[in-house]
Amino acid sequence: MSDHHVYKKVEIVGSSRTSIEEAINNGLEECSKSIKNIEWFEVIETRGHVEGGKVGHYQVVMKVGFRIQSS
Amino acid sequence: MSDHHVYKKVEIVGSSRTSIEEAINNGLEECSKSIKNIEWFEVIETRGHVEGGKVGHYQVVMKVGFRIQSS
Amino acid sequence: MSDHHVYKKVEIVGSSRTSIEEAINNGLEECSKSIKNIEWFEVIETRGHVEGGKVGHYQVVMKVGFRIQSS
Amino acid sequence: MSDHHVYKKVEIVGSSRTSIEEAINNGLEECSKSIKNIEWFEVIETRGHVEGGKVGHYQVVMKVGFRIQSS
Amino acid sequence: MSDHHVYKKVEIVGSSRTSIEEAINNGLEECSKSIKNIEWFEVIETRGHVEGGKVGHYQVVMKVGFRIQSS
Amino acid sequence: MSDHHVYKKVEIVGSSRTSIEEAINNGLEECSKSIKNIEWFEVIETRGHVEGGKVGHYQVVMKVGFRIQSS
Amino acid sequence: MSDHHVYKKVEIVGSSRTSIEEAINNGLEECSKSIKNIEWFEVIETRGHVEGGKVGHYQVVMKVGFRIQSS
Amino acid sequence: MSDHHVYKKVEIVGSSRTSIEEAINNGLEECSKSIKNIEWFEVIETRGHVEGGKVGHYQVVMKVGFRIQSS
Amino acid sequence: MSDHHVYKKVEIVGSSRTSIEEAINNGLEECSKSIKNIEWFEVIETRGHVEGGKVGHYQVVMKVGFRIQSS
Amino acid sequence: MSDHHVYKKVEIVGSSRTSIEEAINNGLEECSKSIKNIEWFEVIETRGHVEGGKVGHYQVVMKVGFRIQSS
Amino acid sequence: MSDHHVYKKVEIVGSSRTSIEEAINNGLEECSKSIKNIEWFEVIETRGHVEGGKVGHYQVVMKVGFRIQSS
Amino acid sequence: MSDHHVYKKVEIVGSSRTSIEEAINNGLEECSKSIKNIEWFEVIETRGHVEGGKVGHYQVVMKVGFRIQSS
Repeated sequence: MSDHHVYKKVEIVGSSRTSIEEAINNGLEECSKSIKNIEWFEVIETRGHVEGGKVGHYQVVMKVGFRIQSS
Repeated sequence: MSDHHVYKKVEIVGSSRTSIEEAINNGLEECSKSIKNIEWFEVIETRGHVEGGKVGHYQVVMKVGFRIQSS
Repeated sequence: MSDHHVYKKVEIVGSSRTSIEEAINNGLEECSKSIKNIEWFEVIETRGHVEGGKVGHYQVVMKVGFRIQSS
Repeated sequence: MSDHHVYKKVEIVGSSRTSIEEAINNGLEECSKSIKNIEWFEVIETRGHVEGGKVGHYQVVMKVGFRIQSS
Repeated sequence: MSDHHVYKKVEIVGSSRTSIEEAINNGLEECSKSIKNIEWFEVIETRGHVEGGKVGHYQVVMKVGFRIQSS
Repeated sequence: MSDHHVYKKVEIVGSSRTSIEEAINNGLEECSKSIKNIEWFEVIETRGHVEGGKVGHYQVVMKVGFRIQSS
Repeated sequence: MSDHHVYKKVEIVGSSRTSIEEAINNGLEECSKSIKNIEWFEVIETRGHVEGGKVGHYQVVMKVGFRIQSS
Repeated sequence: MSDHHVYKKVEIVGSSRTSIEEAINNGLEECSKSIKNIEWFEVIETRGHVEGGKVGHYQVVMKVGFRIQSS
Repeated sequence: MSDHHVYKKVEIVGSSRTSIEEAINNGLEECSKSIKNIEWFEVIETRGHVEGGKVGHYQVVMKVGFRIQSS
Repeated sequence: MSDHHVYKKVEIVGSSRTSIEEAINNGLEECSKSIKNIEWFEVIETRGHVEGGKVGHYQVVMKVGFRIQSS
Repeated sequence: MSDHHVYKKVEIVGSSRTSIEEAINNGLEECSKSIKNIEWFEVIETRGHVEGGKVGHYQVVMKVGFRIQSS
Repeated sequence: MSDHHVYKKVEIVGSSRTSIEEAINNGLEECSKSIKNIEWFEVIETRGHVEGGKVGHYQVVMKVGFRIQSS
């Protein structure tokens, strides 16, 4: 067994009509459908669309880190 | 009719006693009183005042982008 | 009496299972146990742990500014 | 007469279906309809929309600097 | 049907002997062979090789964003 | 009466033959002719022209923040 | 045959108990199990865990660039 | 005796009604009341309050470095 | 018992005549004399003195993170 | 013969009335009059002068890398 | 005669016991002994040595730009 | 005799098949053949070539600072 790990990061954009936290969770949820072992996220950018002078969608750009499972 | 658009960005600071999301919406609401066609925002900085060891105001510095209406 | 102030900033990481706002407040609360005169905070980085494809903890790295009380 | 000048910078986004240079000129052209004395620009970001696997529009975010005419 | 989207960004380097615009399009063209729904690109870095005191290849490092198609 | 404020920032360049401080004040003075409620400035960049191996003009690029007066 | 290449970059984190160089090589080794034609790496961040007041693991975040083989 | 030194940096904000240089010195003076062996400073940010269209206070955010005295 | 932690980061500079890794460990060793619960470090800057055309000392500026023990 | 190379980078600004690509080539051409073995360039900043609401000159700030020929 | 110019930038550090402005001028003065046609400077970093709790030397890191005289 | 110094920085890239430290020393060694009074270096970027899934060459981009000897 190895005494070290290797991780990979991918960059995704989650969105939500409600909150920054939900945008993060929506992104993670979609991401976890195809990636196992997600361990952490880092917010890179917070932005959004505006509709009628109010936030339409929060968009959170984030890096998602996961352990690469070596056999 | 032109096949391209020109946008302008202004930098504003919205604030709220309650949440980061409300600070963003307060800034956009004030901004939309004088600016038409706001399409997006980008959070530049999140900060705030502290009162009695708790957040007094969240302050969100953001760029607000809108289409310039050419006649 | 002096006509100028000196401030110090320390860097802390607050965390919460619930929201970014609570992570900020948890960090400030702990910080205010040992530091008087906290006046503002600046969010440096927002990140977190992921458990089961959802956010486990929000972690907010922030600078906390306070006035140095000279006698 | 003053021996110094004051300048202002505004941030705009020019776009073009053809080239980065045309996107810059489209932005400046629109900008010069309402602003006198534009002297320089600084490209902040180059990006664009993709349509059918090719660039649809180049979008150039730039700061545009102009002299403030004091009377 | 969901009311929010999730996007992914990948980082690629396109190159061209002729122009920055062609380097961008070459990168997008190659990218679109394996990725559906590409919506935007962001230029991260512009560089190149020099041959005989002239540009040999323009190299454009860019992020390419696409919608993740959830079923 | 609202319990929160909205601020706007504009980017200006002040200049002076004498000092960085005077360049800042020259910029603020010009700026305050058209803007009410200026509250703070942030220096973004310090540069200048050189004449005969000495500084000809100090140029200070700064953001100037002011409260938006809502009625 | 094309006269230009397209490259992709992925972001990985290699680790080692011994040295920064070994952390880089551990990351590359794992990465090269699934990626052909790796040509270069760029260190983005160097960090690590601390155990008993000494470095437990060096962690090197890096971008790894490889040529996309078009057929 | 060791052949190497360890230094610590703290972040402070000095202010002055008069000049940037005095703001730096005011910060260092206060800082040196509690810290021995200060060796250098690095300016991180220069900003200030505006009163009546002129600089009220210059505020200089700086890192202050000092040698840790090991016994 | 709380379900969240608060961390603090301090910025130190470790040095060594031999290697970057030893500079990191020298910094952590000194730091751990006065700080309990150090958990991680982040390298901010690598630099050094040159003596006779060779590295005299490696100097590693790093942030050191530790858990604040609340009672 | 050595198994490693040393490179140097210089920072130049090329300009052109026509295009960004020509500004790069103009800078490289001038640069190659006095420097041998130029191998690559990196664009640092793209900016320009504006004349009559259109680009007068494109100015491209770039780093130019070349191999140092050791004897 | 060419309709475009090429400029070069060098990075120098000027210092002074008195002020930031004098440090800039000291750097430019030394620089202009060997370089003709200096046209502008850009401050990159302001720092200094501390002696006895006060500024010993201001050190200003700056880029100095000059026109390359082609024959 | 002057009470202040002026320094210059040049940017070089050292490389090594073995380690980051050797890459730094190789760069300094070459650099010191033509430059006197080198006093410090600052690592700007660490990267390298990959051969067969392992590091082929470490490449360290660094700024090298030296005192300008005025007569």
